[in-house]
This record gives sequence, structure tokens and C-alpha cells, in this order.
Amino acid sequence: MAPQHLHLLIDHKQGVDAERSTVARILAWAQNKGLRVVEPRGAGICMDRVVSVKGIGELCPQTLRQELLEIDGILAISDESAPLFRVVDRALTKSLVTIGDAKFGEGYTSLIAGPCSVEEPEPLLALARELKECGATALRAGAYKPRTSPYAFPGQGLRGLEILSEVSREVGLPIVTEVLDANDVDLVAEHASMLQIGSRNMSNGTLLKAVGAAGRPALLKRGMSATISEFLQAAEYLADAGCEQIILCERGLRHFDHELRNLLDLSAVPLLKLRTHLPVVVDPSHGTGRADLVPTMMVAAAAAGADGLLVEVHQNPPQSVSDAHQTISVPSFRTAAETVAAVLLATGRKLATGPNQSSLAHS
Amino acid sequence: MAPQHLHLLIDHKQGVDAERSTVARILAWAQNKGLRVVEPRGAGICMDRVVSVKGIGELCPQTLRQELLEIDGILAISDESAPLFRVVDRALTKSLVTIGDAKFGEGYTSLIAGPCSVEEPEPLLALARELKECGATALRAGAYKPRTSPYAFPGQGLRGLEILSEVSREVGLPIVTEVLDANDVDLVAEHASMLQIGSRNMSNGTLLKAVGAAGRPALLKRGMSATISEFLQAAEYLADAGCEQIILCERGLRHFDHELRNLLDLSAVPLLKLRTHLPVVVDPSHGTGRADLVPTMMVAAAAAGADGLLVEVHQNPPQSVSDAHQTISVPSFRTAAETVAAVLLATGRKLATGPNQSSLAHS
Amino acid sequence: MAPQHLHLLIDHKQGVDAERSTVARILAWAQNKGLRVVEPRGAGICMDRVVSVKGIGELCPQTLRQELLEIDGILAISDESAPLFRVVDRALTKSLVTIGDAKFGEGYTSLIAGPCSVEEPEPLLALARELKECGATALRAGAYKPRTSPYAFPGQGLRGLEILSEVSREVGLPIVTEVLDANDVDLVAEHASMLQIGSRNMSNGTLLKAVGAAGRPALLKRGMSATISEFLQAAEYLADAGCEQIILCERGLRHFDHELRNLLDLSAVPLLKLRTHLPVVVDPSHGTGRADLVPTMMVAAAAAGADGLLVEVHQNPPQSVSDAHQTISVPSFRTAAETVAAVLLATGRKLATGPNQSSLAHS
Amino acid sequence: MAPQHLHLLIDHKQGVDAERSTVARILAWAQNKGLRVVEPRGAGICMDRVVSVKGIGELCPQTLRQELLEIDGILAISDESAPLFRVVDRALTKSLVTIGDAKFGEGYTSLIAGPCSVEEPEPLLALARELKECGATALRAGAYKPRTSPYAFPGQGLRGLEILSEVSREVGLPIVTEVLDANDVDLVAEHASMLQIGSRNMSNGTLLKAVGAAGRPALLKRGMSATISEFLQAAEYLADAGCEQIILCERGLRHFDHELRNLLDLSAVPLLKLRTHLPVVVDPSHGTGRADLVPTMMVAAAAAGADGLLVEVHQNPPQSVSDAHQTISVPSFRTAAETVAAVLLATGRKLATGPNQSSLAHS
Repeated sequence: MAPQHLHLLIDHKQGVDAERSTVARILAWAQNKGLRVVEPRGAGICMDRVVSVKGIGELCPQTLRQELLEIDGILAISDESAPLFRVVDRALTKSLVTIGDAKFGEGYTSLIAGPCSVEEPEPLLALARELKECGATALRAGAYKPRTSPYAFPGQGLRGLEILSEVSREVGLPIVTEVLDANDVDLVAEHASMLQIGSRNMSNGTLLKAVGAAGRPALLKRGMSATISEFLQAAEYLADAGCEQIILCERGLRHFDHELRNLLDLSAVPLLKLRTHLPVVVDPSHGTGRADLVPTMMVAAAAAGADGLLVEVHQNPPQSVSDAHQTISVPSFRTAAETVAAVLLATGRKLATGPNQSSLAHS
Repeated sequence: MAPQHLHLLIDHKQGVDAERSTVARILAWAQNKGLRVVEPRGAGICMDRVVSVKGIGELCPQTLRQELLEIDGILAISDESAPLFRVVDRALTKSLVTIGDAKFGEGYTSLIAGPCSVEEPEPLLALARELKECGATALRAGAYKPRTSPYAFPGQGLRGLEILSEVSREVGLPIVTEVLDANDVDLVAEHASMLQIGSRNMSNGTLLKAVGAAGRPALLKRGMSATISEFLQAAEYLADAGCEQIILCERGLRHFDHELRNLLDLSAVPLLKLRTHLPVVVDPSHGTGRADLVPTMMVAAAAAGADGLLVEVHQNPPQSVSDAHQTISVPSFRTAAETVAAVLLATGRKLATGPNQSSLAHS
Repeated sequence: MAPQHLHLLIDHKQGVDAERSTVARILAWAQNKGLRVVEPRGAGICMDRVVSVKGIGELCPQTLRQELLEIDGILAISDESAPLFRVVDRALTKSLVTIGDAKFGEGYTSLIAGPCSVEEPEPLLALARELKECGATALRAGAYKPRTSPYAFPGQGLRGLEILSEVSREVGLPIVTEVLDANDVDLVAEHASMLQIGSRNMSNGTLLKAVGAAGRPALLKRGMSATISEFLQAAEYLADAGCEQIILCERGLRHFDHELRNLLDLSAVPLLKLRTHLPVVVDPSHGTGRADLVPTMMVAAAAAGADGLLVEVHQNPPQSVSDAHQTISVPSFRTAAETVAAVLLATGRKLATGPNQSSLAHS
Repeated sequence: MAPQHLHLLIDHKQGVDAERSTVARILAWAQNKGLRVVEPRGAGICMDRVVSVKGIGELCPQTLRQELLEIDGILAISDESAPLFRVVDRALTKSLVTIGDAKFGEGYTSLIAGPCSVEEPEPLLALARELKECGATALRAGAYKPRTSPYAFPGQGLRGLEILSEVSREVGLPIVTEVLDANDVDLVAEHASMLQIGSRNMSNGTLLKAVGAAGRPALLKRGMSATISEFLQAAEYLADAGCEQIILCERGLRHFDHELRNLLDLSAVPLLKLRTHLPVVVDPSHGTGRADLVPTMMVAAAAAGADGLLVEVHQNPPQSVSDAHQTISVPSFRTAAETVAAVLLATGRKLATGPNQSSLAHS
């Protein structure tokens, strides 16, 4: 089916006058062809960047595209089924994301591990030390938990953030933690090295814009039934708001077979890498919902090219406040991490490690 | 599989002291049984309402439930797979939702119609008049549009709201419009009679709480791959925040067959009615994504028991700024509305109409 | 994405010589263009009917299609994503399917009802009489049951067929029953008026060909996750094998929400009607898996344009040998049938009835 | 929800008298409890093996199970949601499947490679030699192709089988090929070492029984939207018909994102291994439908624990008669096979190799 219209992304970095000239050139060209140019009406941040050419009908869209790309000031062209990407698919951008000793991309895979929710300070400190020893270079734990029910445990909030800060300082592991509300972004950014946007919020434009503007690396989880293209467009929201360090996280899709909580899409890892320069991390804990599958899927994800793994680990999984059934123990994590390191070496990559963890990379 | 723990919802309407007594009674009972009671730690609005009893193991959960229900101050008990509902499943609550002449529930079905996005004032006014004449009792149009791409047309914002207000006053149709951002809730509530929460935001707790507290009826759309239980729990967020007039809207699920945009789940209508007293509305426009299926699915939805229909209509669908392919024309809408009215009568219900629309109900 | 090749369906009804001439004309045309013609190698029934033109690359497929359609002897052209249909989409074919007093299509909707499995003769006879009185014009019951487990009750086989024959003769209702094995087709065709192919066998080419050649009307159920196009292509197998009376049956799709057994796709009814002249029947029993939803979904299916309803009914549903949870009682069926009749009248259609059932059509 | 009935699998290997005694013991026990025993009526191969105990209602099913298991002659007990397995989940059975030099299980992973369809003898011979050199220990190619459309290329049939036989003899690679029709099973078994049952036929009981009785190893592909439990029950059909060497093959599930043909479920590998002793093979070609993802997913599947890989390879993929877009070239296959071998070593397993391929296992 031939497209009936084309969307043009206009360069707005050269100022309003340059932009207006571009639009004028498009209008002249379109009038010549008998085509209609639609400028989205009203005010708004995007209004001045995209215009649409309508009424293409019988004309050959390939030819029109070629002519349009010769017009100065047009950055990109798309029809509806091929969305515009300004940032995430630009091959030249540097793709390595770094927090502390954790490196994502350029041949490095990092382990982010920790409990589902922040619990008490002492056990968390002890756990973090063990995780670091196992090869983790970042600590995850939820201070704010997205919950299906309004009556479920929502996390400890600020107290949780403070515990995380403290543990981070003591152990020397950067923190990755979820932010649920645009109003909390600054607070979370004070305590965490990387802001996580959860699956339920992948399409929450308000939150994406706030996190994108926070000046922190962001980890964006794929929505429960998001296509690859929708996932990349959500990342583009972050990029468009100013975020320069974005990690994508595959965490499993809605599934019809209830032996699993979600269906982990490992093919998303190589597929995303064909489309974007952003690092891709895999969460096998939510991705399967079963502790007995997590270690194997950590290894499979590493083999699929994942630049990082996000894993729920607890000293005593059945006592975990939340997600107990998908949380693995420290010894399980240690063994899996060793296999991950070996598989990475076998595929020409390596586990990112800190100064005192270097033995792992050569295990 | 027997549950390993039970969650208890504690009555908090009798004040903090009553609550503490309830918890004390639970603790005493649990100690007696050798069970552990977990109170979610930290501060927070939900913290004082739910406690969990863990370690049930081999004990018979049915017996435990019975014993617990005899403890004063416990409102409800659930294991993880059976979520707690305080509001939406309470059979006694009045289920009729009303805005202007539109009535949803108690045998009335109402038509909410309009363009996808607010466009210019004059054509919208003309359209609204025609829709009213066809039997619509509420006008829909988006001032704020949730968009997959940050570069897509985001709606006209405030200008759109003002146009809607003006048209509403002129024509006498209440407005249903989407709100995307918790910060916009008050503004939208000034101009609209009913606040819509879109599919992408069904799990956006921040927005649910803000809309729930706005003092306006709310229309909650089902998420793209939400279960019935998740949908009801999202409604419970609204209810818990104070909203007393909630309408649920089925709008199609993610689908593997790309001949359709979404897969409309009409069985959700009778299934929801077995679970909740809230009225259920169907959106066949997003629910199919195809204008050639919308009229038939309007009729089928009415026959399935829908208390309302949310339909995208435009005077000239191909010129619609967005969703052109799923927008029907005014004559199509008129014919479909007549068939809907006839089918409602055949099933013992009727189309809600205003003083000047009464002929329709008997057509 | 432009297609890289086109498939041509060649008229083979004019004999082998005519066919060879057509292929020669295609070869000459292709040589002229520098394109390659691939004839599927080896022997086989389809081999002589389709050839493929490869290497289209930069050429405009629209132009090529037009040129090809001017070549004598080419019936149809497709690229991979647009399958060839010779029979099911031919608008001129007569679309009314009839067995006994049951009529499917041309404004008639018929009720096919009965237990999941054939049980004992006396209760089945009594049930059939009651169903006829309620408006059913055909009796359904499984003699051969497709089962997930090899150890589940497989139906009564031949004895079941004989019971069905006997009941059919006594009550005057034609039989619709499933056939699982190509080797049983003749036997089942002796006892039944319409052969049903179940969901699990929608893509079983051997069975489709055998049923298609049996000289009986066929009812084809949609596969558990089949697209509309795959469904129609399976019907085309039946048609290609000689079947002239084919009914399509929507019966629900695999679903992620386990409150339902399947997700009934009522939009398939109008969508199929845009693509084919074949009547479409809906099975709300398997389509939902819940007796408490079946009556409402019968009415909704009728309103969606279904030409028939296939419903599991039992005198005492909990005692049903199989599918007890989705089987409705006779009184439920009677009430639903009356509402269905009323909704059909409201939409300008009517329930097909026999000489002694005529009151229903005007109820 | 407590089960309302239990199904009992009765040992029938000890002859009819022993079976009748078992049933008598069950009847006596049930009468004592006030429970009803239902024997599926009519004749049939399964009839004498399973009986159901109904009316459990308020009684504790755990206690009943324990009592029943003490009755002599009962092999297994299930309620509806927990199907009976006699063969596939019996931990003691030998799980290594072998054809030629290919070994599946017990630490060995084997590569099965070849074109989608059998093409001409010479290129196939040349390809087979190259594949063997790359580490493949079995050759795959379709002589009979399951096709969505009755007009699509159905494979070469007998001629294809003869070509495969000839190539197998020359190169010394065993053949894995699909059989579509129960009537073709003997013919295919003459030419092939392993009979493949395709996704479309996973629930085709007739074919499962015929292949199960053929005395050949069988490779069973998972249906397009089959649950793990349904998949295992289909394998149980094969086992019940006598097949002693069964391999399960994950090949991707129906998916909503059309960038992929199917969604490869790698978590099925470890999950199946928790449930059955049968080896599990992965088909990344159909599992993704994209040649650019196949090599990476081969490696990921090996890391997930796959006992074999089934890969479409062609000397010139774009010229492949079918599945060109998901077929990889020989050099791609060679590189991927080397990485697979390295990853297997890193996870403590190894690639099965023939006498002249041994270098690979240590590469």
C-alpha cells in the first residue's frame, strides 16, 4: 500500500528563520506538484519541527523522497509506518554508557544486581558487598515500586533512597533505581547514578521528558507488549529531552503460557543492535518470573549480545519483601556470573569489572 | 498450589487507634499459630492498611481465612492471585454515571462521538451539532494526544480545551477528553465533564491518583495488554483517590494479525459486569483501527451489554488530522446509531437521549 | 518494501496445451524484461498452476502486474504477503449454505446446538427435541474428540455416529460433527450432514483435502492463533479439493488472560465478510470457555453479523462428560435464542427456522 | 479453587484382569467415601486406562491423592490442570537421542543444517559436504512442505526423498525431514533417519500416532501458540504410540511485532528441561524469520542449554526456493558454528562431531 503522506523532520537547530525558510521551500515544491502541506496547528514543542505532505496518491513516493531530501533543512522523511528517529539510530553517536566501574557496550557487559525492593540497611550492605565480590558493578533495588494494586507495598520512598546512598558510598557500587513520578526525578537523581523507567511507564511521556532532562543516565524498560519500534521511539523521547546516556532493557513480554510470568524476547537484543547504537540490557528476573530459570537465561542473554544483566538477588530469596519467586540466591548468582564471564570471553567480549574484581574477567 | 501468605486489608476509617487494635489482634492470633506478620515498612499512604501473614505452608488457608474474618477490623483477605478490591467490586455502590444527558448504566447506553483531535472551532461546532442530532449525548476530541513518537502531532493543548469548552456551551454536549499529565488535570477538569485516561497510562499511578482526586467523572481505558484484574485494580487506584464516578473502556488489545490495529475484546463487557458495578464503554474505533468495521462493532458492542460507545467521527474522515483510517463519517455514524438504538430495545435497554433527541430512543 | 517476486496463478482448466502456451507467453515476456521465471520443480498437483517471476528489484511492480494481467491464461497475481485465492474470494459464488432447515447467509442465521460429546441415546434424543423447540435447526455433538492428552476421553467413535444418526432421524435435525482423521471422513460423511474441522486441524492439509473431496458441506474452525489470511487459505484448500459449501467458524484465539479460555474475535465476522462470500459462524462456547458469558456473546455475535451460532448445551451442564464449564443449560439457551431472534430482526435479518419453528422468527 | 475431580491412570501392562481388579479397588474405595467413579464410555484405545473420581467437593484432595496412590495399579493421578504424563516426564528414561554422529543430550549438542526445501541433487551434495565440514552432523531439507496456501510450492515429494537418500549415502550425514501425512510415514521412514513433525501438525493426533509407531526417532516442533504443557502432551502421544527417541524443537511463537516472523522462546529450553528428560533443539531460522538474527540466536540457544540447533543454510540464500529471508549462507553458518562450539565449552558441554570433525570440538 503506497503511503498517502510523508512526514518531514525539519532542522530546528539553526534558529527560527532557517526553519521558516525550509518550510517555505517545501511549500513551493509542494505547490508545484499539486500536493498539500499540513503544519500541525497550535503551539507546542514539536509543532515547528515536523510538517506533513499529503495527497501523494498515485505519485511515486520514492521519487518524491529523493526530491525532498535535496531540499535544504530537511533532516528526515517518513511515512506513518516508518517513524522518525533523530537520535537513537544515529550511528555516529558514542554508544558506551558508564556508571562507576560498570560499562555497557563496546565489548563490555556489566552485572547490575540486588533485591527487588530496598529492605533494611545492614542486610543490604552485606548483600551489596557479596554481589560486588561476585562481579556486580552496580546495585539495583527499588525505593519506589510500581504496583498493580493501590494496596500493595509501594516501596520505602525517601528512606529507601537514603539507604541506597549510604550503601553505595560504603561499598562503592553505583545505584540503579526506578523513578515512578516526574516530581520525584530530582530527588531520585540525587541518590542514584542511573534512573530506571519501568515497563508500565515506557509510554508515559511526562516521565520520559522529566527523566530525559535530569542529566543522569537512564535505563528504559520495554513495555509489556511494546514493539521494537515503539520501544525505540520511547528512547527517542528521552534523547529528545536531552538524555545522552540511554540503556534499553528487555524484560519479557506478556505471555499466554502461565508457567512463565513473562516471555523473555532475547531476539530483541540483536534486533535492537541492528537499529540503534544504544546498549541493551536484559532482565531475566522479570523476563521469566522464575528463579529456577534465571541463571540459565543470564547466560543465554550474555550469549545473545546483552551489554548488561539486571538481576534480582537476595540473601534469602523466600524472605524477599517482593518478587520472591523470581529472586535468586547469592551462590546461584555467583555461579551464573562465572558462566557469563566465560561465555563472554568465548564470544570475544568481557565482563566489566572494577580494580578489585579483575580476576573474574579472566576466570 | 497453596498460597504461602495472605494479605489482610485493615479498616482505617475508624482512626489510627482502631487500626492499631486490629493489628494487635492479628499479631496475637498469628503468634498463636506460629505464623509471621509482615507490616510493609516505611511511610506511605498504603502502609497502614495492609499487613501480610506469612509462613502458611502446610496449614489449610481456607480455615485460616475463616478465622481471620472473625477478627474485628479486617475488611478483606487475599492471596497474591486474588487482588484486594475495596471499591470497584462493592455491589451496593450506585453504578449509574451521568454527565449532561449522557447516562451510563442502569439500562442506559450513551454515545460519545467526535474527532480524534480537536481541530478548528467552526467545523467542530458544525460536527457537534450533527452528532447531537444523530443521538450523541457527549462530545469527544483530544486536546492532548498521547503519541508514540516525540515528533508526532501532540494536540493543541490549552487552545484545544478552549475550543472544546466553547463548542460544549454552544451545542449543549458535555466534553470527554484525555489528560496525559498529572500537572494538567486541574486545567482539563475546568473545561471537560469527564477526564479520560488513555491505554498507555492505565498503569501510571501518578496520573491515576491525580485524576482520581479531581472531583470529575473519569473514563479509564484498558491497557494494550492488561488483564481484567489489572484493569480493575487500576480503577481501584482512581476509587482509592476519591473518584466516585468511574467508567471502564475496552479499546482493543495488542494483536498478532496486522489486518487489525487492535483486537476488540467484547467478552470483556459481560466479564467486567460479573466483577464490578462500574459501567463499561466500548471504543470500536481504536478497538479495530478500521473505519469499515466500526459501525458493525458499535452494534455488536451494544448487544454485548456496553453502557456506552466511544466513536471517532469526522465530517470528512480522510482529512482528519489523526486516526483518519479508523474515523467514520457522519452518515455512517447516523445509520449505526439507529441500529444500536434498535438493538438496545431488542435487548431491553435504551439509548440515553436528551430532551430533543427523544425520537431516537423509539426509532 | 517492494516485492522481489510475483507469483502467477495459471488457468489449468483449459488443458495442458493451453497451460503450456500460457507459460511460454510468460517466459517470452520475462526474457524481454530480463526477469527470471521459476517453475516449481518435481511433480505434484499444484506444480502446473503457479510460476514465479523473480528479480524484480528496482522495477515498478504495479506496472509489471498490469502487463502480466494482459497475458492470456493468468488468473491471478500475488506477492508473498498477498496470497492467491481462486475460490473463497470470488464474489459471484453463491454464499448460502443449507443443511435441512438450517440456512447460513443471505440474511439467515441458524442455531447449531448440542452437547460437547455424544453421550447416551435417550438423553440426547430428549435434548435434541428441546433444542429444536428452542429454535435450533442443527444438532452438534462430538463422536471423535480432539484431545490435548492421549489419555483423555477421545469420544465414542462409531457408536457415537450411530447414536447421532438415530437421533437425527427421530427429531429431524441435521448433524454437524467433527472429523479428526482423513481415514474417517467417509464414515462420518455417512452419518453427518456437515463435517467439522477443528481448530487444531485448520492447517492439516491431509484432512482438509479429504474433507474437501467428501461431497458434504464443511464447517472450518479458525486455528488458535491463525490470521484471517491463513484462515481463508485453509478454506481455499477445502474449495480447491472440491467443496462447494464451506462455513467459517470463529472460536476464540489464544489469550494471555486466564480468566478466559480463549479470546473471542467478533471483529473477525465483519472482517471476513469484507474478504469472502463464505458464511461465518461463531462458537461462543469455546470462544470464551465460560458458561456465564455464552448467552451474552451469542447475542453479540448475532449483532456482529454471524450467519450462525455453534453452542454447547446440555440438560445438566455439570454432568457433561467434557467442557462442563462452558456448556449452558436448555433454559439459558432458550432465553438467549429469543434475544438473538429479536436482535436479528432489529438488524434486518432473521433466524432460520423449520416449518414448526416459525413462531420464533417473529417473536 | 479445589479440583472437583481426579483422573487416575491405570496400569494396563499387566493385562485386562489386573486392570479390572484395579478398577474394582477404586470403586470400593470411592463407594466408601461417597464419591462417584466415571469410566469413559464406548470402546477405544484409551478407554481402559483412565477413570475419573468425581464429586470431591469439600474433601481435601491432598488426602485423597495419598489414599489413591496406595491403591495397587494406579500409575498417576491428576486434576484437569495437571495433565498425566506416563513417559515424557519419567526421570529414569535414557535421554540421549542419537542418529549417525549426531548426539542430542547428555552434554552433547548437534547441528542439523540444510536448505528449507530439497532442491537439485548436485548443489545439495556440495552443500552437504560444506555443512559437514562446518560441524553439522545431520542434514535437513524438506521433501514435503506444509504450506499455508494450497497453491504454494509443496516440495518435491518422493523425488526429494530419493535425492536426500542419495546425498546422505554420499556424504555420510543422517537425514531429518518433515512428514505431513500419516500415509507417507513409511515412505519417509525408508529415506530419513529422523521424522520431523511440523508446528502446524503438533496437535494432529493421526500423524503423531503414525510417526510414533514408525520405529524412527522423531523431532516434534512446538505449535505456533502451544503452551509447554500442550507441547509435552503432544510428545506423550508419540511416546504412547511407541516412539522411544523423541526430540522437542522450539521454533518461535506467534508474535505481535511484525519485524519478526515468530518470537523465539529460549526460556522454553530450561523450562522443558525441568519437566522432561527429552532433548530440546532450537530452530532459530523459523524462530526469528530473519537471516540477520540467526547466527546470534544460534549462539544464544546453545547458551540456553539447547541439545541441538536446526538451521536453514543455503549456498546462495536469495536463490533458495523457499524461506530465502531466513536462510543463512555457508560462511555465516561456519562462523556461528565456531562460536557455538566455544560457548558450549564455556558452559561445560560440547558439540557432537564425527571422526573427521573432531577439531571443531576443541576449536
